[in-house]
Amino acid sequence: MSQPPVWYEHIHTCKQTGARLGRVHTPHGTFMTPAFMPVGTQASVKGMSPEEVSGMGAGIILSNTYHLWLRPGSEIVAKAGGLHKFMNWNGAVLTDSGGFQVFSLAKPKDIKEEGVKFSSHIDGRKLFLTPEDSMKIQNDLGADIIMAFDECCPYPSEYDYADRSQARTTRWLERCIASHKNPDTQALFGIIQGSMYPELRKKSAEAITSFDLPGFAIGGISVGEPKELFLEMIDCTVPLMPEDKPRYLMGVGTPDYLIEGALRGVDMFDCVLPTRMGRHGTILTDYGKKIIRDKKHAEDFGPMDPECGCYACKNYSAAYVRHLIKANEMFGLRLCTYHNIYYLLKLMERVREAIAEDRLGDFKEEFYKRYYGN
Amino acid sequence: MSQPPVWYEHIHTCKQTGARLGRVHTPHGTFMTPAFMPVGTQASVKGMSPEEVSGMGAGIILSNTYHLWLRPGSEIVAKAGGLHKFMNWNGAVLTDSGGFQVFSLAKPKDIKEEGVKFSSHIDGRKLFLTPEDSMKIQNDLGADIIMAFDECCPYPSEYDYADRSQARTTRWLERCIASHKNPDTQALFGIIQGSMYPELRKKSAEAITSFDLPGFAIGGISVGEPKELFLEMIDCTVPLMPEDKPRYLMGVGTPDYLIEGALRGVDMFDCVLPTRMGRHGTILTDYGKKIIRDKKHAEDFGPMDPECGCYACKNYSAAYVRHLIKANEMFGLRLCTYHNIYYLLKLMERVREAIAEDRLGDFKEEFYKRYYGN
Repeated sequence: MSQPPVWYEHIHTCKQTGARLGRVHTPHGTFMTPAFMPVGTQASVKGMSPEEVSGMGAGIILSNTYHLWLRPGSEIVAKAGGLHKFMNWNGAVLTDSGGFQVFSLAKPKDIKEEGVKFSSHIDGRKLFLTPEDSMKIQNDLGADIIMAFDECCPYPSEYDYADRSQARTTRWLERCIASHKNPDTQALFGIIQGSMYPELRKKSAEAITSFDLPGFAIGGISVGEPKELFLEMIDCTVPLMPEDKPRYLMGVGTPDYLIEGALRGVDMFDCVLPTRMGRHGTILTDYGKKIIRDKKHAEDFGPMDPECGCYACKNYSAAYVRHLIKANEMFGLRLCTYHNIYYLLKLMERVREAIAEDRLGDFKEEFYKRYYGN
Repeated sequence: MSQPPVWYEHIHTCKQTGARLGRVHTPHGTFMTPAFMPVGTQASVKGMSPEEVSGMGAGIILSNTYHLWLRPGSEIVAKAGGLHKFMNWNGAVLTDSGGFQVFSLAKPKDIKEEGVKFSSHIDGRKLFLTPEDSMKIQNDLGADIIMAFDECCPYPSEYDYADRSQARTTRWLERCIASHKNPDTQALFGIIQGSMYPELRKKSAEAITSFDLPGFAIGGISVGEPKELFLEMIDCTVPLMPEDKPRYLMGVGTPDYLIEGALRGVDMFDCVLPTRMGRHGTILTDYGKKIIRDKKHAEDFGPMDPECGCYACKNYSAAYVRHLIKANEMFGLRLCTYHNIYYLLKLMERVREAIAEDRLGDFKEEFYKRYYGN
């Protein structure tokens, strides 16, 4: 493999925790890590303009293979000149493989070696997706980082099933690599599975990282397991991942999980949490969730989050946003979503600063005091 | 009455048509007329930020007494420091009186001299609204221009009913004037009614304009009548309105109606059309409506309106916006709404330019060729 399109530059290791500060270079710019990636499932970060998302400091967003395959169709995105041009986003883009959605829509008996049969969530029609299809779609979409088609086991899963599944994920990765058409412009990341079994995580990590890929991800956690198990799985997986390549923890998440992940050497995270919570009129703060639609904010004329400097908190009162949400006004969801994405991007900035200053452990302790304290 | 808070400055009369170009001064800035006022029914122009609306050149927006009275309640808006501060809008605001909504929710038998009994559209609870209540609410909201509580007759209405109704509207105006607490900071406009009867329009215009108010409106048209009747009513009403005060045609409208109104000497217009159409994935153009959600735009990679210079048309393809709308993505509605408001504001700019250059008649003819021609 020649120089990969995406590569990791290490800047500093936190002396207190071993967490790492770095930079990921892509064909569409560079972003600092640890980084949170806002999710734009259907080629739009829900409610936001691309300028708003980049203006908040996001260098990369995530989009969804399964959803774009169904609607508008990956050929249309390709004809439009790819995802960046289609959605007018000049930063980096990562597409997931569609595996996560497909497995949630498939019956166990329909998961075969060749691929997966499942029903469309839009019209119920039967569809079939293979590793080759996923690569073809992701090549059409043209994201900077594309993900291998893997099986994300539900929690809990039997050991034997999880073992067979992670072995298949490795075989599927081989097929992904073989069918990936643009290795010079799109970086394919492999995904480590193994459910909640340290032994299987090790097996999967060794198999997946044996391929010379530009980056690797931890999949199949943050799927409903207790936090202890979540942490244990990261603890046993990260040390098996190459130091010179970006590490991506899929589907995370909440402020505490982001901090825990960063602390253990993870570089990239994604989650629908800030947009989904925003659409329900709830915001993230250092003191936990705040339900703006609650009656108690009816006459709360201060900002939603007094410690926040975002557009929503600087210009609007909690009372106004509550009114908009109660009245089903789109702009209320925009303001909550704006705040939530800003909050997580700023949180990662604070995490990076703490790493640079060798005090991520202290940061976590202080953060937890507020986050769980009240 | 001392110097009114809102006043009209005449700039030019179109030699070709008699249409007038002017400027309306308010406590929150000045706007050029003829002007289109975007509607923010519930203290938000649906989907838009205040910066987006003002950035497009809107100097005044409209908001709704009835809706804000019910939710969040006018006392809450008053406590927040008034509507401008509540919604972070620094331009001028006009509030309607609530009459239009209330009459659409009331049974004929519940319209009494004292006021109107009706059922809330939110929870069905019985409410009662009087001219004094409307003034109290509008004083709480603090808009620059507030409207008299009037009865807007349905179309068609019997002559006798329309006559009694316009006479009551005049009596209600007296009560509005008597109970208006802030005549020095909020300009109360009277509303001329009279259904579709020229005789009653004349009667109402004489009665309403006999009060020394800072501005007057034409109400009760554009309520479903044929266009000929609409034009006839403006034709017989405008000449009866003072020349030195702003003239406002309520609930208009479509590009052709705006041009016809301006041509006849109207200064201000409002309509939910651009926001409502935007939310349904349809846009306004010089060639009529364009249904962006139509299948024919699936691979239309040019702008929604190739003649438009708005943010949406400059940065996104019709295919992308169609995708967003089909996928129920909020951003699609934002883009269509943005275009529609921009389109009407620009249309009024073109109308003002044509007046300044004494060619509004030609402008109308050329416009109609395209608008109806294809």
